[in-house]
Amino acid sequence: MSSVNLGLYFLSEVVGTGMLILLGCGVVANVILAKNKGFGGGTLMINWGWGLAVFAGVLASAYSGAQLNPAVSFGLLIAGKIDGAEFGTAVGGQFLGAFIGAVLTWLAYRDHFDAEPDPAAKLGVFSTGPAIRSYFWNLVTEIIATFVLVFVIFAFADYGDIQIGVPGGLGPLTAVPVALLVVGIGASLGGPTGYAINPARDLGPRIAHALLPIKGKGSSDWAYSWVPVVGPLIGGAIAAFAAPVLLHLGH
Amino acid sequence: MSSVNLGLYFLSEVVGTGMLILLGCGVVANVILAKNKGFGGGTLMINWGWGLAVFAGVLASAYSGAQLNPAVSFGLLIAGKIDGAEFGTAVGGQFLGAFIGAVLTWLAYRDHFDAEPDPAAKLGVFSTGPAIRSYFWNLVTEIIATFVLVFVIFAFADYGDIQIGVPGGLGPLTAVPVALLVVGIGASLGGPTGYAINPARDLGPRIAHALLPIKGKGSSDWAYSWVPVVGPLIGGAIAAFAAPVLLHLGH
Amino acid sequence: MSSVNLGLYFLSEVVGTGMLILLGCGVVANVILAKNKGFGGGTLMINWGWGLAVFAGVLASAYSGAQLNPAVSFGLLIAGKIDGAEFGTAVGGQFLGAFIGAVLTWLAYRDHFDAEPDPAAKLGVFSTGPAIRSYFWNLVTEIIATFVLVFVIFAFADYGDIQIGVPGGLGPLTAVPVALLVVGIGASLGGPTGYAINPARDLGPRIAHALLPIKGKGSSDWAYSWVPVVGPLIGGAIAAFAAPVLLHLGH
Amino acid sequence: MSSVNLGLYFLSEVVGTGMLILLGCGVVANVILAKNKGFGGGTLMINWGWGLAVFAGVLASAYSGAQLNPAVSFGLLIAGKIDGAEFGTAVGGQFLGAFIGAVLTWLAYRDHFDAEPDPAAKLGVFSTGPAIRSYFWNLVTEIIATFVLVFVIFAFADYGDIQIGVPGGLGPLTAVPVALLVVGIGASLGGPTGYAINPARDLGPRIAHALLPIKGKGSSDWAYSWVPVVGPLIGGAIAAFAAPVLLHLGH
Repeated sequence: MSSVNLGLYFLSEVVGTGMLILLGCGVVANVILAKNKGFGGGTLMINWGWGLAVFAGVLASAYSGAQLNPAVSFGLLIAGKIDGAEFGTAVGGQFLGAFIGAVLTWLAYRDHFDAEPDPAAKLGVFSTGPAIRSYFWNLVTEIIATFVLVFVIFAFADYGDIQIGVPGGLGPLTAVPVALLVVGIGASLGGPTGYAINPARDLGPRIAHALLPIKGKGSSDWAYSWVPVVGPLIGGAIAAFAAPVLLHLGH
Repeated sequence: MSSVNLGLYFLSEVVGTGMLILLGCGVVANVILAKNKGFGGGTLMINWGWGLAVFAGVLASAYSGAQLNPAVSFGLLIAGKIDGAEFGTAVGGQFLGAFIGAVLTWLAYRDHFDAEPDPAAKLGVFSTGPAIRSYFWNLVTEIIATFVLVFVIFAFADYGDIQIGVPGGLGPLTAVPVALLVVGIGASLGGPTGYAINPARDLGPRIAHALLPIKGKGSSDWAYSWVPVVGPLIGGAIAAFAAPVLLHLGH
Repeated sequence: MSSVNLGLYFLSEVVGTGMLILLGCGVVANVILAKNKGFGGGTLMINWGWGLAVFAGVLASAYSGAQLNPAVSFGLLIAGKIDGAEFGTAVGGQFLGAFIGAVLTWLAYRDHFDAEPDPAAKLGVFSTGPAIRSYFWNLVTEIIATFVLVFVIFAFADYGDIQIGVPGGLGPLTAVPVALLVVGIGASLGGPTGYAINPARDLGPRIAHALLPIKGKGSSDWAYSWVPVVGPLIGGAIAAFAAPVLLHLGH
Repeated sequence: MSSVNLGLYFLSEVVGTGMLILLGCGVVANVILAKNKGFGGGTLMINWGWGLAVFAGVLASAYSGAQLNPAVSFGLLIAGKIDGAEFGTAVGGQFLGAFIGAVLTWLAYRDHFDAEPDPAAKLGVFSTGPAIRSYFWNLVTEIIATFVLVFVIFAFADYGDIQIGVPGGLGPLTAVPVALLVVGIGASLGGPTGYAINPARDLGPRIAHALLPIKGKGSSDWAYSWVPVVGPLIGGAIAAFAAPVLLHLGH
């Protein structure tokens, strides 16, 4: 992968992660902010919205192989599929893209942020928070959920026709499995923490929440902010170490 | 594309857009008009209904490459993928098809239009309206949502196996990603304006609403009608200019 | 197709239609009969249930090309894709399969039929009925909905990789579009009549309802029974005549 | 298949079934345990969660062909597709994997188990129970539902591109049909018993429920535990005998 153009690599992760966060935070806004047509649309709608946000983000990020997530990039780094320069470039692009995506969500739902009285709902559009605050167990949940994400992505590689982190390796139909995987993780493991499973997905929009002039906003809950960063990185690392042992890759 | 038969091209857009609007307006009718079996079925049902309406419409519009949307056609024109004659022919077919589709929806739900007391619900089957009326921000929302639609469609071209606007380029399985994209945009960006994201989808049925002898109908809300026309055209144009820069097409 | 074994052809339609009706009537039972875990699960759940019932039925009916519906077979007959002997054999198999499927649904939900006090709910598991009884407009709705089904199925043939009515022509992935089409028709056009769109789907289980010793059952509503037979046949015929004109098949 | 490494075969079933149960029991926890973000998410969410749990489990179990279910393995044994050593190895791996998956679900939802006052809800995360207790009819429902599962899986083999029980035979896109099938069975036949359709899925987590130090847990309902073991084995066996007769396999 020595011929990778790091500028295009960075741009690809910015665009893909921006699309992911615009649509992902967007579905939460639709369901939880006052007066939206999708208000009260339910958890399954949020799960589909995030899954299809991944779908669109993957399609918009061909050059860099659509990593879109520092936990995925960390797993690829550990597995030797990308090098340190690519890792740093990808993660930088992911955070910038997540920030831009969150700003766009705010613009798309501008009137509804103004109409919403609850500051916690406003933060909930941007970043995750625990249903029951308990840092240790919240961390465990994020580790397990991200392990599933990265482990199954490594399983894709066992088949050869879906490759995350490989330039140009994902096309429109092959993006479907990744989307379905995220729908499933959200439905199955999103209950306690809202499934950040991606440090950029959580911290990027949290920074946007802190910086944007959102009417009537409250705290950005920095006390919790480390959980959806550390948990996913641990989960991704475990998956990268476990996959070769448990999946018999390349048999 | 000089060998395109413009008559068949026009017919293809009429049929595809007619199918799209019959099923798209149909799911709204099912969920919001009195006494329907799907009454109160929820936003996610509407999102799936519109996504699968696109699916069926795409399959019925092979000859012209299933554009079905002036914002998509405008993007293809800007990108040089279709010429002016094809653009005009496609858009004309889209508006006629949308009108016919809306008439068919009215016939399929005839008794339920009669049984529904609320004039706003009747209009809501045909055309979109804002949750919070604010023309500037409504326009912003439609621009962003249509940008996502057309931008990701351009991303499809990066892979080569899904081609909108290319005669015969979409088959049954490759229509799935387009459908999923529309489900996702509806869930994620449909809250404020009901995601017209298509001038023909909104204005064609609005004209039908104005002309049809619908029992107890109210205003066709012409004051808002320009937003879902202008917003999608701007969003489609931005996507057409941005795609070559941001997607590194054809690498 | 002269080498078709009509016995295997008949069996294939019996098995596929039996699977379709077991799962299709099953999801209605789950949602509307007392004390079920899916009770009150909503319209979208019923739409997915019927769509995936078609999916399973198609996979179980390879030999005869998974017609599963006299309206589809009638369209194929008009289009010259099957002959009279095949048509009669398929339709006979479809009615027998639908009857068997309905009996199996009754067995799977036996306790819940006994626990359900409302006779109309019991009939609703087997057969469709109108939300607003109005034979003319109910017929119009069934014609339009079945037209969409058969017309889009003919559009599949335009692409060549999905073939209904062609022995062995549908595989696991290519059955997905047919399933999605039925989910969409249910969501979009199922409001007024419950989308029979298939004479065997409605009449076969209605006969089963009349014959089975269901505790506390009421009328089988024979007065309505002709609508979901005649409407789909008309809709399928219109589609068969319209498809070559409107789809430019085989271009 | 004489060159199968039984150790890797066992490991593959452990990993795949562990993934299946973690995500499958997880979605139930999300929907029924107190204070979860998905609380009250509904039956369709549970159906999708289990279907996508199968999807992820299949992808994580390539070496052994992703059987993940003693009823499937029993069907494959009867059909001569696997031998006795492979059957025993697979089933052992499935039970161990199901136990591990259930423990992981408990860890991911640890705080919510503690916060939930109802012991029946806690058991409901692990194992199925009947809506109306009636062992004979509960058994009939499990037999019918598992028959559908295994029969349609055998139908996949009729097409050749999806192979369960064949090492390396399932890839990311071809896992989609299996997932959709399980969504459909859950929606259509899950009402009376909660669709165990898999002895390991039910008994493995039930053992975990009995052994784990779950705060405030109640009975593990051993009186019912034989139904979701015996029913699926009977249903799988019937499917294995019926498939060659009814599907005209290999025509």
